[in-house]
Amino acid sequence: MRALLIGRFQPLHLGHMEIIRRAVEEYELIIGIGSAQKSHTLENPFTAGERYEMIRGALREEGIDAIIIPIPDVDYNSVWASHVISLCPHFDIVLSNNPLTIELFSPLREVRRTEMFSREEYSGRKIRERMIKGEEWRHLVPDYVAKYIDEIKGVERLRYLAKNDE
Amino acid sequence: MRALLIGRFQPLHLGHMEIIRRAVEEYELIIGIGSAQKSHTLENPFTAGERYEMIRGALREEGIDAIIIPIPDVDYNSVWASHVISLCPHFDIVLSNNPLTIELFSPLREVRRTEMFSREEYSGRKIRERMIKGEEWRHLVPDYVAKYIDEIKGVERLRYLAKNDE
Amino acid sequence: MRALLIGRFQPLHLGHMEIIRRAVEEYELIIGIGSAQKSHTLENPFTAGERYEMIRGALREEGIDAIIIPIPDVDYNSVWASHVISLCPHFDIVLSNNPLTIELFSPLREVRRTEMFSREEYSGRKIRERMIKGEEWRHLVPDYVAKYIDEIKGVERLRYLAKNDE
Amino acid sequence: MRALLIGRFQPLHLGHMEIIRRAVEEYELIIGIGSAQKSHTLENPFTAGERYEMIRGALREEGIDAIIIPIPDVDYNSVWASHVISLCPHFDIVLSNNPLTIELFSPLREVRRTEMFSREEYSGRKIRERMIKGEEWRHLVPDYVAKYIDEIKGVERLRYLAKNDE
Amino acid sequence: MRALLIGRFQPLHLGHMEIIRRAVEEYELIIGIGSAQKSHTLENPFTAGERYEMIRGALREEGIDAIIIPIPDVDYNSVWASHVISLCPHFDIVLSNNPLTIELFSPLREVRRTEMFSREEYSGRKIRERMIKGEEWRHLVPDYVAKYIDEIKGVERLRYLAKNDE
Amino acid sequence: MRALLIGRFQPLHLGHMEIIRRAVEEYELIIGIGSAQKSHTLENPFTAGERYEMIRGALREEGIDAIIIPIPDVDYNSVWASHVISLCPHFDIVLSNNPLTIELFSPLREVRRTEMFSREEYSGRKIRERMIKGEEWRHLVPDYVAKYIDEIKGVERLRYLAKNDE
Repeated sequence: MRALLIGRFQPLHLGHMEIIRRAVEEYELIIGIGSAQKSHTLENPFTAGERYEMIRGALREEGIDAIIIPIPDVDYNSVWASHVISLCPHFDIVLSNNPLTIELFSPLREVRRTEMFSREEYSGRKIRERMIKGEEWRHLVPDYVAKYIDEIKGVERLRYLAKNDE
Repeated sequence: MRALLIGRFQPLHLGHMEIIRRAVEEYELIIGIGSAQKSHTLENPFTAGERYEMIRGALREEGIDAIIIPIPDVDYNSVWASHVISLCPHFDIVLSNNPLTIELFSPLREVRRTEMFSREEYSGRKIRERMIKGEEWRHLVPDYVAKYIDEIKGVERLRYLAKNDE
Repeated sequence: MRALLIGRFQPLHLGHMEIIRRAVEEYELIIGIGSAQKSHTLENPFTAGERYEMIRGALREEGIDAIIIPIPDVDYNSVWASHVISLCPHFDIVLSNNPLTIELFSPLREVRRTEMFSREEYSGRKIRERMIKGEEWRHLVPDYVAKYIDEIKGVERLRYLAKNDE
Repeated sequence: MRALLIGRFQPLHLGHMEIIRRAVEEYELIIGIGSAQKSHTLENPFTAGERYEMIRGALREEGIDAIIIPIPDVDYNSVWASHVISLCPHFDIVLSNNPLTIELFSPLREVRRTEMFSREEYSGRKIRERMIKGEEWRHLVPDYVAKYIDEIKGVERLRYLAKNDE
Repeated sequence: MRALLIGRFQPLHLGHMEIIRRAVEEYELIIGIGSAQKSHTLENPFTAGERYEMIRGALREEGIDAIIIPIPDVDYNSVWASHVISLCPHFDIVLSNNPLTIELFSPLREVRRTEMFSREEYSGRKIRERMIKGEEWRHLVPDYVAKYIDEIKGVERLRYLAKNDE
Repeated sequence: MRALLIGRFQPLHLGHMEIIRRAVEEYELIIGIGSAQKSHTLENPFTAGERYEMIRGALREEGIDAIIIPIPDVDYNSVWASHVISLCPHFDIVLSNNPLTIELFSPLREVRRTEMFSREEYSGRKIRERMIKGEEWRHLVPDYVAKYIDEIKGVERLRYLAKNDE
């Protein structure tokens, strides 16, 4: 049975990894990279291709196999679920705790909730804020992701973009 | 070294497979599914998700590993190469014999030509025509693809859509 | 029970009227004006607003009541049926003989075929050709439509646009 | 003489009804459903089709006749008035108190202001807030709309979506 | 008095120059570069930026002053004239022999026809065909344009793209 | 050597003029009008055409020559620099202090920082706020711009639009 898990993964963090680890125990997993056309903003610093690298690399290090699909936004909620279904190989269920995702997929696929990780600790927004402020963030993401972000100078990019808002 | 190979794969055929087999000998391969938003037309009968299944299944049967990325059109040639680069994990070279692809990627990536397979025999357009006319087509595609198209009733879909043009 | 009937109505003709008359005997009817954003071309000379006037006027003359909804194209077949469902008030079935419409709506709504009118005689394309060539066309459309097209100088517009192709 | 009145109708409320009642005394009325492509957000919970049902049903209960047209956004102010004119049957004047609507339509149509209803009491935003907080809202909308929103479980949808912002 | 002249200028040729020379005798001229987002196709080989260089350079050689504005397509005829008006500095009249341009601008601006140059001789399409076939084309365009196209290897680009259609 | 300077110029002010004066001493200058499709909002009150008039007029009064190009947004950061390059005649360097512009152009063009003018004094946002509040603003923009904005009743437009937010 195949399950789809969608996130923006800006960046992939240990909370995501926990969900993914549990999901692959039960399902063949498709990971959808949402807002794939977005990059170089404070909310979405990394391109879909960079996020693909993060996910692929981190999963490989743990021997996890998953299908990864970049999914550009359509900005039209009524057709979004059909859009996702069209871009992805077949899936039977959707794994999500996001109310909008659940609402939009419910007429077309079974939706199951994921067990919650600590959002207090693991949150893309908080990790990006830590990067901007120069606080420690590497312990919140898989080692592969920390190394990759260093390699592409991701923190410099984010801090640089943050100057727009000063 | 990573190479990108883009096609529409409507459907994946033995000509593609020959190029893929040679490419994976030399490169870590990314396969881009072009015109990913198109489906249910005579030119593009299959969704990106269905084409993903074909490619993934056929490659698995031969033990070939590749990254597969659906790539929607942007209909703006000047930005198309940047669009592809943004959606895909990093690649060093582009494999293509298509003049437009070569022209658009040349300023940004090294482009290498692929050895030609027989276009007379292996051509998406010709396979789709055979499907519509009820001629044999299964020998022109990998076994996995033939079975998958049967499973999703792909030939019926194509023949049905062809009635629009009668 | 509500039924949706979609056409481009370039222009509304007696073949459409025959289908509409039969449909309203059985269903509460929604008429979708397809390609609503198109106008001023040889294929689509009239705006959605003008086509709305034609349909509304012709139906009123026969005392027929129907909901009329302009439906812009999305140029993305996989999401088109969801797009139509989002724009229209609720409908239970779709009335169509068009293979693409049938194919795209089948997973989401019951589709019923309409009895065929003579496409030889009643066809938007043939009526537009007659208008361009200066042949008689008024007997192929409802009186209201003929008068309305005269009023907006629709034939002049079409003939004028045809000069582009000379 | 035909007049166009545009709103988002999220949802249709008694303030709208008051304007509509006065408008139909003087004009043949077209009601444009703005932001037609939006739904399932806190600002725009209902689809254009659902809003069409609300307006049509509420008007029928009062014996009011009006043309209703869903109008998707174009996000390009300079062309918005032309876009509306293209989608709607002919209208002579625009009824509006909205500065942007007045500014954009003034070069193309006569604009007349509507008498103001109490915005303090009747406001889509305030009704949506009441729905989310579990306060009474049914007395602010036509009976038909209250019943319809109950039927489609609209309040549940809105409350559910509100969890995104927690 | 300002006049707008719109063309695709693929490439700028002596027929265009003749119209421009006459226009600047009477008007302050705005030259709109249509289909500005298109390039690298057989119909539209040059980018808007390249076409800007051709027009600017050729006009300078003759001491002609004009405002040049790239105008991307909107693919929505009903709003096209408003789109052009929004992108361009103020103009009083439109110079055109193109039926669609005349039809779409007539409600908003005075349209005047240009005297016809010999379309038999001077035609973008024919010049592009000559380039592809290796026939002489330089005598059909201003010297500046011939030199510029050589400089950017425009003929090689066009011939190369033509292989797509073989 | 050609340099590109991009801004929104809502409106053109003396800070911009200072940068432009210095730039034309060193470079042949292209001025890109960003967010060209936006107008009639508090952030972007003027159309691209109106902004073109402001820039052209103010530069002429000082005898400054520059190429001016309206640049619509693409809302896709990864392709934005390619989009700008496609619309503009050739340029060698980009002049900018904007982190996003610098980040996006760095892989494709040399970027040079401009000397900073006093952002405290000269800022489009502050000038628009002064216009809305009825404070003096004419001393912050070139004389030509002040006269032009008066002529098109720009302050009235802005104040009028501001009522939307009350």
